[in-house]
Amino acid sequence: MYFADRLADASRQKHSVAILGVDPQLDTPTTPGIPAGYTLTQFCCETIEACAPWIVAIKPQLAFFEARGVDGMQAFAEALRTARRLGLLTIADAKRGDIGSTSAAYAEAFLGDGDFASDAVTVNPYQGADATMPFIAKVPKGRGVFILVKTSNPASGEFQDLPSPDRRLWEKIAERVEGWGGDFVGTSGLSSVGAVVGATYPADLKRARELLPHATILVPGYGAQGGAASDAVAAARADGLGAIVSASRSVMYAYLKAPGKKPPQAAADAIVSMRSALNDALAAR
Amino acid sequence: MYFADRLADASRQKHSVAILGVDPQLDTPTTPGIPAGYTLTQFCCETIEACAPWIVAIKPQLAFFEARGVDGMQAFAEALRTARRLGLLTIADAKRGDIGSTSAAYAEAFLGDGDFASDAVTVNPYQGADATMPFIAKVPKGRGVFILVKTSNPASGEFQDLPSPDRRLWEKIAERVEGWGGDFVGTSGLSSVGAVVGATYPADLKRARELLPHATILVPGYGAQGGAASDAVAAARADGLGAIVSASRSVMYAYLKAPGKKPPQAAADAIVSMRSALNDALAAR
Repeated sequence: MYFADRLADASRQKHSVAILGVDPQLDTPTTPGIPAGYTLTQFCCETIEACAPWIVAIKPQLAFFEARGVDGMQAFAEALRTARRLGLLTIADAKRGDIGSTSAAYAEAFLGDGDFASDAVTVNPYQGADATMPFIAKVPKGRGVFILVKTSNPASGEFQDLPSPDRRLWEKIAERVEGWGGDFVGTSGLSSVGAVVGATYPADLKRARELLPHATILVPGYGAQGGAASDAVAAARADGLGAIVSASRSVMYAYLKAPGKKPPQAAADAIVSMRSALNDALAAR
Repeated sequence: MYFADRLADASRQKHSVAILGVDPQLDTPTTPGIPAGYTLTQFCCETIEACAPWIVAIKPQLAFFEARGVDGMQAFAEALRTARRLGLLTIADAKRGDIGSTSAAYAEAFLGDGDFASDAVTVNPYQGADATMPFIAKVPKGRGVFILVKTSNPASGEFQDLPSPDRRLWEKIAERVEGWGGDFVGTSGLSSVGAVVGATYPADLKRARELLPHATILVPGYGAQGGAASDAVAAARADGLGAIVSASRSVMYAYLKAPGKKPPQAAADAIVSMRSALNDALAAR
């Protein structure tokens, strides 16, 4: 069964387009990356478990696990196992991409059968079709790919918005993504070759849906990065499917603004609010 | 001491611009990724040890370690330790890049003090300055960054060569790399903010040197990917420094074409030939 169809089914069943970004931040002078009394694995897995009823997938950010070395990678693998056990889909936010033979190894790492195997992975298209095709080759096996199109960060326009030459670079890439995904449209009408488009650029999100009528769009940037629910759902189809919205810091670290609540409980409360806000925004369109 | 200066010193001392791509391939129907009788760690570390006298750095490709899960990441850390013990510089070929806070975690992973700490890392610029700056922030601490400019793969032109609008995208990025690196030019006259430009596009390599007068240029694509020595050295300055040339498969797997030789010995022989070919090509310019 195609990944996009599994995702759409989960969204219907749970009445949710929310996904949990599992981003255990590094320590800062003001905030501990791991709350006192938790191990890295506990913090991630208990948060996933607490949020599970209201989300369709987790999206662990590899950077925060790699920054903790081999122990971090063990925790990443454990977070994936926990999510699978809870019936959640898993999206490795790895933003990988390289020459063909190397992308094939990355595809094996994240869409194969090993420790880091996930249902889907995010992919950086800068190196062109060689970089993306080895990931897309895993789609018939039920895996999904989200290709960076227009990212949520402040400087995303620096290269992505360049006129290249008749349209912006990201629009050109969006057209290619739609083409790459054409052969993999499932019963939901959605392709398992999806796109990443940030909630922080709502006009671009609407434009992306036009350019990508079949893509499942992964929308980061909700919450701590400033994207609003009404912005984030701009990428959804008329039936409310086709866009999944991720929040990370605003959920994982909700406990910092909720005195007396344990981190997993604060995260669950935050995700319940987020799910409602997204559903309300979808209904209000 | 700046990374670029350490690299230039090592090149002078060893009379070599060769670096070893540590790419333990995955098994294929015809070829085992790890030679019979070796573990992953042994294969990598014994190859590094055998090649050490003739190279200035190793460049492990993260994909081939991630594809092997937690054990692979342990082997990656071990390869880095072996290289350091042998006085070699280490370049993590990770091609990372993400929104600012996430790139900062990647910079910590690869340019910090943990298991995966290396002297330099390759960075994907698609997300703009937010993605690159957290890595560049480590340069004053002696670390190096190689930003993807024009990559060696067949489809690299698909987006990198787009007119954007007055020059190709990669040329635009090259100009930015030169700007980012301007504050970090050491006694060698080279910046620790470097660029990746493939040996497979020799005309572009020459053009890259013009656009990047101060960058250390990392040149992949020599050997198995088809780049010749005369092409690869096109990015060097007149004094022969400023470009380092990487070969991976043609060295690690030289034993497949050298019956009777053990893999590390065949790799050492291949790297000796490569070093000579590059030095001859530099002298012949």
